Amino acid sequence: MAEQVSEQTTNRLSLYLRFLNELEAGGVRTVSSKVLAARFDLNAALIRKDLSHFGDLGVRGVGYVVADLRQRLRQILGLDRCLNVTIIGAGNLGFALADYPGFRKEGFRIVALFDTLPEKVGGRSRSGVPIHDIRDLKQVARREQITIAVVAVPAESAQVVVNTVVEAGIKALLNFSPGALRVPPDVKLKSVDLTVSLESLSFHLARGVDRPPRP
Amino acid sequence: MAEQVSEQTTNRLSLYLRFLNELEAGGVRTVSSKVLAARFDLNAALIRKDLSHFGDLGVRGVGYVVADLRQRLRQILGLDRCLNVTIIGAGNLGFALADYPGFRKEGFRIVALFDTLPEKVGGRSRSGVPIHDIRDLKQVARREQITIAVVAVPAESAQVVVNTVVEAGIKALLNFSPGALRVPPDVKLKSVDLTVSLESLSFHLARGVDRPPRP
Repeated sequence: MAEQVSEQTTNRLSLYLRFLNELEAGGVRTVSSKVLAARFDLNAALIRKDLSHFGDLGVRGVGYVVADLRQRLRQILGLDRCLNVTIIGAGNLGFALADYPGFRKEGFRIVALFDTLPEKVGGRSRSGVPIHDIRDLKQVARREQITIAVVAVPAESAQVVVNTVVEAGIKALLNFSPGALRVPPDVKLKSVDLTVSLESLSFHLARGVDRPPRP
Repeated sequence: MAEQVSEQTTNRLSLYLRFLNELEAGGVRTVSSKVLAARFDLNAALIRKDLSHFGDLGVRGVGYVVADLRQRLRQILGLDRCLNVTIIGAGNLGFALADYPGFRKEGFRIVALFDTLPEKVGGRSRSGVPIHDIRDLKQVARREQITIAVVAVPAESAQVVVNTVVEAGIKALLNFSPGALRVPPDVKLKSVDLTVSLESLSFHLARGVDRPPRP
């Protein structure tokens, strides 16, 4: 378990888990690396390599037992416990994320929003997440046992906000601002680029999505 | 080019393109499938397969010429022209997306927001995107040559909105609502799941991000 596992592998584990949720809901008992490979258009060797980081999860001749692999992936991804998350920036994006219904379902609890504007502090998001003053971040983070901060502020304030988050002792950051941000080596920063999704649509338009798939 | 290319492959092309942008900015002239594989923690065979869908892009013994591959990927992804995008739903998420600075940089122009609430129609987002009545979608879509619609409405209205978008003749949809949505076979629907990014952070927390990487 001491081995380094890349960001790309972790992202794929998350996708495998989603597929396993579907399979389990559909009553499927076992799945092969070949089926997983076909579903994600990867190759079976890569899937087996991704999963082999975490011990011997497959059964020769059977593949993976869906329920076991699903439980193991939830454990590996740390989803077998509830994680408290804060969102920094009570703007449009911050509010949208605070009220995003998908997070809670997977065990993420949005417990606080932070902003600098006095007229926002003391208010709440539609789903009831309280807005605190960014100056109270350290104190609230400790009290609410916050382990993840989502940075949803304009690009020009992003680095200052990231520094404040790091000083508050939060070790995992999800960033929605464009541009490069610096964190110390003991802090994990992940950036979301929403453009990737639009590019995939652009590809389909360029190839003519109105052409139905060939039989 | 008639061959089907999967969603997963297209997503990877988009990531390759980002890396090629970095390489070109850094003055790097050529790149091998091995280097691409290491960067994305994939294997070289898969990278070559992804790229081979689009003809013979590599040079034996050299790898890929960065500038050429970058230009070809932009072409393949349809980014060599400007695409007009609308956002349906002038709520927090809709406004956040309308003003997201990343889109324009990659050639996507957000030309219109749509909503049903009379108090929103006629207004504009902070960056100036006008809000129209959803009843005018077909007419505005034609006039503004809109080819992509982003659906940013609550889950319970999503299917009705998707139907309206499809009736307006828009063939590519990006959906942020959770839950399954139906579209006709000639329409491409892509859903964004923001939870995947949080899960990757959860993984790092579970393994202890505060343990510095081994030398």
